[in-house]
Amino acid sequence: MPRALNKDTRLCMSLSGRPGNFGTRFHNFLYEALGLDYVYKAFTTRDLAAAIGGIRALGIHGCAISMPFKETCIQYLDELDPSAAVIQSVNTMVADDARLKGYNTDYIAVASLLRSHCLDTCWTFALRGSGGMAKAVAYALRDSGFRSGFIVARNEAAGRALADACGYDWVPELGELRPELLVNVTPIGMQGGPEAETLAFEADAIACSRSLFDVVAIPVETPLIRFARELGKPVITGAQVIVLQAVEQFVLYTGIRPDAETIDRAAVFARC
Amino acid sequence: MPRALNKDTRLCMSLSGRPGNFGTRFHNFLYEALGLDYVYKAFTTRDLAAAIGGIRALGIHGCAISMPFKETCIQYLDELDPSAAVIQSVNTMVADDARLKGYNTDYIAVASLLRSHCLDTCWTFALRGSGGMAKAVAYALRDSGFRSGFIVARNEAAGRALADACGYDWVPELGELRPELLVNVTPIGMQGGPEAETLAFEADAIACSRSLFDVVAIPVETPLIRFARELGKPVITGAQVIVLQAVEQFVLYTGIRPDAETIDRAAVFARC
Repeated sequence: MPRALNKDTRLCMSLSGRPGNFGTRFHNFLYEALGLDYVYKAFTTRDLAAAIGGIRALGIHGCAISMPFKETCIQYLDELDPSAAVIQSVNTMVADDARLKGYNTDYIAVASLLRSHCLDTCWTFALRGSGGMAKAVAYALRDSGFRSGFIVARNEAAGRALADACGYDWVPELGELRPELLVNVTPIGMQGGPEAETLAFEADAIACSRSLFDVVAIPVETPLIRFARELGKPVITGAQVIVLQAVEQFVLYTGIRPDAETIDRAAVFARC
Repeated sequence: MPRALNKDTRLCMSLSGRPGNFGTRFHNFLYEALGLDYVYKAFTTRDLAAAIGGIRALGIHGCAISMPFKETCIQYLDELDPSAAVIQSVNTMVADDARLKGYNTDYIAVASLLRSHCLDTCWTFALRGSGGMAKAVAYALRDSGFRSGFIVARNEAAGRALADACGYDWVPELGELRPELLVNVTPIGMQGGPEAETLAFEADAIACSRSLFDVVAIPVETPLIRFARELGKPVITGAQVIVLQAVEQFVLYTGIRPDAETIDRAAVFARC
């Protein structure tokens, strides 16, 4: 017999266009491991306003927000944490009584990983991408002290807007640039995608860099990460981001930060 | 490790003013015992419209409805099953895609118990009570073929309305009446209530009756049931009603009717 749910069990959930299993398995594993009276379940919706109204009316404690709801949900919230306000993108809602507050734990996780990997903020970086996650990473770089960088994006409008907002430069291609830090925030290298086998940066740029950061989480070892490791470069992986952002959600929902070994076990379980 | 929830796990739930543990424990026990990928959780709300809007928007599969929402929820539903339409009271909602249909499994369970206990429909009955559950029981008696009966209620308006609707008579007190079937649908005898030790009918009426039905579910053995059993009278108990109405909900949610032994184990577990 599993831990019996009861009337006081707290529900946390996720809302996304295409629910995955990671969050459901990760959070439920930790609730079980830590003996917390919570349960987690993924949802999708065709009516975001009513879904968030229901979250409020049912007293659902926390909710992860994924594509395509990260920006559109903001109008239904009562308050934004600075992590979400700075990029106007929410990936986590927490209910405090009937008030809903939006956070962005992608931003929190990336900023934390930049800090803990002791990168030199005097380095120049190149960040490839201009979507929602690119925004979170660019602002995290800015707020971590990086002063000089390039947003590399074929989409000039989005790339230039992001670069301008953070005080960086926009370029359509990396070209001859050889920055110390390379950051991929595109789907290049993503398992099952059209560019699953492609390096997100050309080999020479990787060889010239000092460190690499790939936000693609699946596979754990993307072509970029594999090649960088072969060259002995220090890396930050998308697998680290996805786990740490989920840990930050867990902390927001429960007030408890699990130890590293428990987090590792949860991450392994969640990936199955 | 318990059965791992995943993105496809179906959520069923309850909405009531004061959630109890019975439904959550009963349904989750059966999901586990039968290996069904469902999870059940009790909720309350201060905003019924938004809560039901959320159930719809989140694709929540089924929802039990308890006091004080059984009548007010009807305006938010798309369709009523005859079990709910006849008494204009819903205790169960089932989602079929985005359509919500209301049922009343109290009515279904009571009608089923009246049938399975082979009561003689030529008997006269006295039903004490005039609230929502009294309505379900009175209509179940009518639809089971009982032609002659008394609604015993101090509240003349409610008592007379119910009696008229079903073609029975209203009386404020049982007085000298000695019907064959006595039915209690008041809180008299309920554990923790102000009349926990009181017999719902006077001893002489009980002694003269042929059979008794007490809708009070806790304790399993109310003063009325205990006294009736001491006199060797056949009884139907509230514990039978609460379990059978939950089984009918389970069948509506899952399409599966558990065997009697599994139901008994679930009921014992749910009462703990």
